[in-house]
Amino acid sequence: MRSPLTFSIHHKSKENAARTGTVTTPHGSFKTPAFMPVGTRGTVKGLTPQQIRATGSEILLNNAFHLMLRPTDTRIAKLGGVHTFMRWDRPILTDSGGYQAWSMADINTIDDDGVTFKSIIDGSKIRMTPERSIEIQNNLGADIIMAFDDCPSSVEPQSQSVARRRHALTARDGVLTKKQHESRLLQSLDRTARWLSRCDVAHQKRDSQALFGIVQGGTDLDLRHRSVQQICNVDLPGYAIGGVAVGESPEKIAEVVKFTANLLPDEKPRYLMGVGYERDLVAAVAAGMDMFDCVLPTRNARNAHAFTRKGPLNLRNARFAEDMGVIQEGCTCAACANGNSRAYLRHLFACKEMLGGILLSIHNIHHFQSLMIDIRLAIEDNSWSVLSKRWPVLTTST
Amino acid sequence: MRSPLTFSIHHKSKENAARTGTVTTPHGSFKTPAFMPVGTRGTVKGLTPQQIRATGSEILLNNAFHLMLRPTDTRIAKLGGVHTFMRWDRPILTDSGGYQAWSMADINTIDDDGVTFKSIIDGSKIRMTPERSIEIQNNLGADIIMAFDDCPSSVEPQSQSVARRRHALTARDGVLTKKQHESRLLQSLDRTARWLSRCDVAHQKRDSQALFGIVQGGTDLDLRHRSVQQICNVDLPGYAIGGVAVGESPEKIAEVVKFTANLLPDEKPRYLMGVGYERDLVAAVAAGMDMFDCVLPTRNARNAHAFTRKGPLNLRNARFAEDMGVIQEGCTCAACANGNSRAYLRHLFACKEMLGGILLSIHNIHHFQSLMIDIRLAIEDNSWSVLSKRWPVLTTST
Repeated sequence: MRSPLTFSIHHKSKENAARTGTVTTPHGSFKTPAFMPVGTRGTVKGLTPQQIRATGSEILLNNAFHLMLRPTDTRIAKLGGVHTFMRWDRPILTDSGGYQAWSMADINTIDDDGVTFKSIIDGSKIRMTPERSIEIQNNLGADIIMAFDDCPSSVEPQSQSVARRRHALTARDGVLTKKQHESRLLQSLDRTARWLSRCDVAHQKRDSQALFGIVQGGTDLDLRHRSVQQICNVDLPGYAIGGVAVGESPEKIAEVVKFTANLLPDEKPRYLMGVGYERDLVAAVAAGMDMFDCVLPTRNARNAHAFTRKGPLNLRNARFAEDMGVIQEGCTCAACANGNSRAYLRHLFACKEMLGGILLSIHNIHHFQSLMIDIRLAIEDNSWSVLSKRWPVLTTST
Repeated sequence: MRSPLTFSIHHKSKENAARTGTVTTPHGSFKTPAFMPVGTRGTVKGLTPQQIRATGSEILLNNAFHLMLRPTDTRIAKLGGVHTFMRWDRPILTDSGGYQAWSMADINTIDDDGVTFKSIIDGSKIRMTPERSIEIQNNLGADIIMAFDDCPSSVEPQSQSVARRRHALTARDGVLTKKQHESRLLQSLDRTARWLSRCDVAHQKRDSQALFGIVQGGTDLDLRHRSVQQICNVDLPGYAIGGVAVGESPEKIAEVVKFTANLLPDEKPRYLMGVGYERDLVAAVAAGMDMFDCVLPTRNARNAHAFTRKGPLNLRNARFAEDMGVIQEGCTCAACANGNSRAYLRHLFACKEMLGGILLSIHNIHHFQSLMIDIRLAIEDNSWSVLSKRWPVLTTST
């Protein structure tokens, strides 16, 4: 059977493990390294598909978990799939719902077969298994679908209170001893491997949807190594690194990603899930990662947090009240190109007018896409050091 | 001094008092009869200027009252005026704040000089006079500005409980006897006339902003006649009918408008404030009115109320859950042209996703602009009867 996904590598950096490429799917291609904006419920909040496209985005992420609850995956299947539903005719990736089932839901039971949890909509009991997750994603019809994995916290016990505040830990995880934590990680690793095989067997649309496996293992490099061996034992069109950016330091993220990326097959796209800030992305690309998603540009935009090359701005700040400059001088996003000023944005945020979050979402996604463009150029030109000159934010602490 | 506004009439209907024309302002021209979307705080909620323009809108309305409170009129003046502030380089009209001062604010005192009320932002006392209203509007810099008038309820005592529910009456109005009501209307009429003279004297930007007077008088035709004589006694580039659509029946609105429009100067643009549904607009155009504004298309959009030629749809309704048709078949608005389905919009509203209100605002404004286009064609073609065939909503009750 022909693979629904091809990955061609164009250039490998002479300076690090970074590479540029193109991923081709049934809904067209996207350039890598690629950043995917998050459209949780089949919408990148407040933006039309045209506005999303104009940010330079070539592929979106949707959440299988949320769409399964509303409007339901069977309904989306009946209506022609998620591309038709949200009027985005380019590539889409759906996550499996594993992370959401763990981080958001009130979990009742977990066993080797799957997870039972309460719906966040109506409290009804929902059973999720590898087979059901793949069925949901087959119904949604994204170009790339993700394996259903067991996602415990990757955070060590001493950091758990921080992680809990960041919603990276579920109530069920409790506060574990170091030994309990290690035991839980090992259990989840082996379970994730068994579940991947079940996902692969359950996958009904091999000719139109590419299934990616997910490597877990927390911050323990031995466990990451073990997980890579287990996951890559299943021949798949791509592999992801999960379970990072849940409360670790940027240095720890970079260390885990660098170690793990190097173990993944060279000729397949490598996807780092849920990461992150600009320097996290640059470090991960240098380690050889190809795909990224993150809610930061859009979620922060709705909270008046502007990303700029020199670092973040809080556009609610009174110092912008009469600042007629655009969000970032020289920016070519639709919000800046149209001359929307910091003063106007501050006014919109002060009045809780939704246009503030919309214009800033456009700018912030464009910011990340501009970074990806510059990253791709730096790889092709072997001019990695230019990046930090053009993006001072990479060398400042956040 | 050259007038900042010219009005040329292109065609007068042979069937009724309707006419087509063009109003030219310092920020370009707009065709009449014209519908103005409402951008209360310097933003049509959720829409970029490009999206507003793509609905066919040629002129917007901003609220002087809201912009005076935030970000303040002096700040907008300092930043170059409201066109620059909100990045809309076409005509803008500001209302005077009179209606808002009456309908929204907690009024403390009213006297012949002006009104004192509490700020809805911080509770501070604000004094509004004809001079201050014009100063605010001079600061904002719209192409057309409105006189500051005394706006009591136009509703007769027996209808006051309905009007109160619709926020058309202020607490101060209380429930008046018929005689008290008539006395209050007469007082407001004469005060509005005195205030208009003060507005005219106070107006500092006669070369760039056109001041319109406002006729009041409620549903009493004798008072309307008296008001027209008073208001048109001041030579202005345009005149408006205020104090309608605050709880009266469509028949009563049509009667008052028809009577009053006929008394206004033929060669000046005639603006009917705050009206209304499709049949109200058509009746008012037939009576000779040229300009309209209303929050209905946008406010209702955010509540899932879709306007269509056959009548309204509530897109929260479960019957649309699997309806892959667009909001209205054959519609050329950006939302329908892009194929967004009723099922998708219902999903967005069910999830409280703001894209639902955005797409429906685009559709609803486009609906009103399409009606204005068809109205202008019907006037030019002397084919008024075709309108109700193409717009079945005009002959159904709402």
